[in-house]
Amino acid sequence: MNAEIITIGDEILIGQIIDTNSAYIAKALNKIGVSIHQITSIEDDWDHILDTLKDAQQRADIVIITGGLGPTKDDITKKCLCEFFDDELVKDEGVLAHVEELFRKYIDTPISDLNRMQALVPSKAEVLTNKFGTAPGMWLKKDDTVFVSMPGVPYEMKGLMEVEVIPRIIERFKRPVILHKTVLTYGMGESAIAEKIEDWEDALPPHIRLAYLPNLGKVRLRLSTKGSDLAAMEQEINDQIASLKNIIGEIIRGIEEEDPIEVQIGHLLKKKNASLATAESFTGGRLASLFTEYPGSSAFFKGSVVAYATSAKLNILGVPKELIEEYSVVSNQVACEMAKRVKALYGTDYAIATTGNAGPEKGDSDADVGTVFIAIATPETVYAKEYSFGNHREKVVGKAVNKSLELILDEIYGLK
Amino acid sequence: MNAEIITIGDEILIGQIIDTNSAYIAKALNKIGVSIHQITSIEDDWDHILDTLKDAQQRADIVIITGGLGPTKDDITKKCLCEFFDDELVKDEGVLAHVEELFRKYIDTPISDLNRMQALVPSKAEVLTNKFGTAPGMWLKKDDTVFVSMPGVPYEMKGLMEVEVIPRIIERFKRPVILHKTVLTYGMGESAIAEKIEDWEDALPPHIRLAYLPNLGKVRLRLSTKGSDLAAMEQEINDQIASLKNIIGEIIRGIEEEDPIEVQIGHLLKKKNASLATAESFTGGRLASLFTEYPGSSAFFKGSVVAYATSAKLNILGVPKELIEEYSVVSNQVACEMAKRVKALYGTDYAIATTGNAGPEKGDSDADVGTVFIAIATPETVYAKEYSFGNHREKVVGKAVNKSLELILDEIYGLK
Repeated sequence: MNAEIITIGDEILIGQIIDTNSAYIAKALNKIGVSIHQITSIEDDWDHILDTLKDAQQRADIVIITGGLGPTKDDITKKCLCEFFDDELVKDEGVLAHVEELFRKYIDTPISDLNRMQALVPSKAEVLTNKFGTAPGMWLKKDDTVFVSMPGVPYEMKGLMEVEVIPRIIERFKRPVILHKTVLTYGMGESAIAEKIEDWEDALPPHIRLAYLPNLGKVRLRLSTKGSDLAAMEQEINDQIASLKNIIGEIIRGIEEEDPIEVQIGHLLKKKNASLATAESFTGGRLASLFTEYPGSSAFFKGSVVAYATSAKLNILGVPKELIEEYSVVSNQVACEMAKRVKALYGTDYAIATTGNAGPEKGDSDADVGTVFIAIATPETVYAKEYSFGNHREKVVGKAVNKSLELILDEIYGLK
Repeated sequence: MNAEIITIGDEILIGQIIDTNSAYIAKALNKIGVSIHQITSIEDDWDHILDTLKDAQQRADIVIITGGLGPTKDDITKKCLCEFFDDELVKDEGVLAHVEELFRKYIDTPISDLNRMQALVPSKAEVLTNKFGTAPGMWLKKDDTVFVSMPGVPYEMKGLMEVEVIPRIIERFKRPVILHKTVLTYGMGESAIAEKIEDWEDALPPHIRLAYLPNLGKVRLRLSTKGSDLAAMEQEINDQIASLKNIIGEIIRGIEEEDPIEVQIGHLLKKKNASLATAESFTGGRLASLFTEYPGSSAFFKGSVVAYATSAKLNILGVPKELIEEYSVVSNQVACEMAKRVKALYGTDYAIATTGNAGPEKGDSDADVGTVFIAIATPETVYAKEYSFGNHREKVVGKAVNKSLELILDEIYGLK
């Protein structure tokens, strides 16, 4: 079963915003067996919208459209849908009542005619209630293709997907099962892996696809298949992974869970009733941001000292001045001290500390650009490792964040 | 002049990664007068790639392709390009030497035949040197359309765009000027603004486009035009903005610079030779991450205490226990104290502090979900403001980050 995603809005085409909606929608649809054939981003332009709708209809069973549903004149999606479906706008009393309630409860400015016009929908549309905003979602059908239109505001779109769109697709479409399993490897480049597993790869049955996903120090190998018998598919993929382990077992770290690694770390810490803090120099709070992104993270994550300046390492973390003078601020010793101190400050069981030089120029130390120390403090011990992450700022920070997560996960798993 | 972007890779279609490349490319091209007509994301699928190349050629002067250039079998872009251009792969000695050098210098594993195959390029391609990776960029032409193919790894793509692609486009194409100016407003909803400025909007000449960009507490009004005489275009847009100020001057905060607000704050602080620290509760290090994203931020940003747990507010920031007991951890008093303390800890001129309840459940206080206090400490004073940012975690954190940046910018500008 094939879907396409169409995002409408000039702001994407001029690069003013990054399209995060499509990844969310793709993931949510994949989970229920719907493959995404194409994602297309276009401007708020009448002809281009109509052409794109027509093209997508040729190829897809479901077309998910986001954007262009605001109350202002630059938003024309609803009118385009009327043209495409040979339909007209009619007032939906349910939407009107909802818009009026939103204004009464949450919005300072008085409701206006423009706001009330959000209640106009194509007469052929099934209205999808948007709990978080004034623009309703719409479900329409042309020949054998379903078109779903939603606002582009991410949390409104997500609410609609969860509560209105996904349940309807599950109920109304017979879907295959899509199964992805991603094998996590560390320590070998993608081409070196490819050579090692060439025979295995060539022998894969054609309904199993293999993809290599290299990313800042790790390579993920994704196996994908589609079918109707989940148990048999699981069995087949697991057998393939077992053979793979015979070839490159030493670099396989496990199977990637649905959850991102920072969430896995949280789950494991909560199970152990253990807690974590971070002391971050050049990673600048990125580790803390990752851990606090999810509800409930306060149960294991206690906080972070972002010690970007050397003075902060001295005054807040209390790293001894002599240590910095003797070993420099980018050193194994200072990283360990940062981890120990932040663990004591926050009274946690574990801590991560980062210090390094992300470039583009040398900072408070003589360390080469790209030199990084990551320290891990555990209930029993503290240690640091040195890395050289190249000469590109974004890459150095990204690799250090990945490596920090990998090191702490290994610790908690008891792999170290 | 029209461009299209094609991103190739299953990982985008299954939602495993967010496509950040397209926004970067779109912005970079817009800056030199190239409009993006469409962005298309497709799988590593032979027929689909060829169809998409054909379609894009009909509409665009330049087609920018990313992805599918890895050394492994799932990557087929180079072979598709050969088919599309009726060409064959030949070895490029320059690329080979570069790949060999990269392996000697930076990569642990020995170079393999697969790596050497990165030096194979279509014979008709002009090779673009990829300083940061083994897959070269390629510049090809079919009839009147230029096709540029680059790897999908973001920092490799960015390096190629900056050094190879943009300079060639500037040199080889006559381009119009594209001018966007974005007026920042705070405190009024998009539909209320639309009603107020309706007459002005209706009177805009057809070559000026207006877009409303509402986002968590602010509405940006973007005026766009295209032409050849930049000075005249600037004048015309500025005149329109002047008329707009006569209508809604009280909610206009300024014209959005090219730079994001956190960079503007950095510039202003550096000019004043002043410094900043943050104390973050539920924003969890997001403010620190934003400030430290840019090279040179250590000149003004000294660090952050992420005090996610109440104990961290007590022990690290030193907020008095009695204050928390009397007013609760989500209060004006505690926010001010956090700002004062973190400013003293880091020895900075300014500080921002956040405390609040982002939900979904109540935390260490009885404050309603969505209740937020943001405190600003300046060389002279400290104050906090209370906000109610709704019941959606992501939205509460996002609005608080935006509002914090707005408050500190106003302080530094001397608007407060």
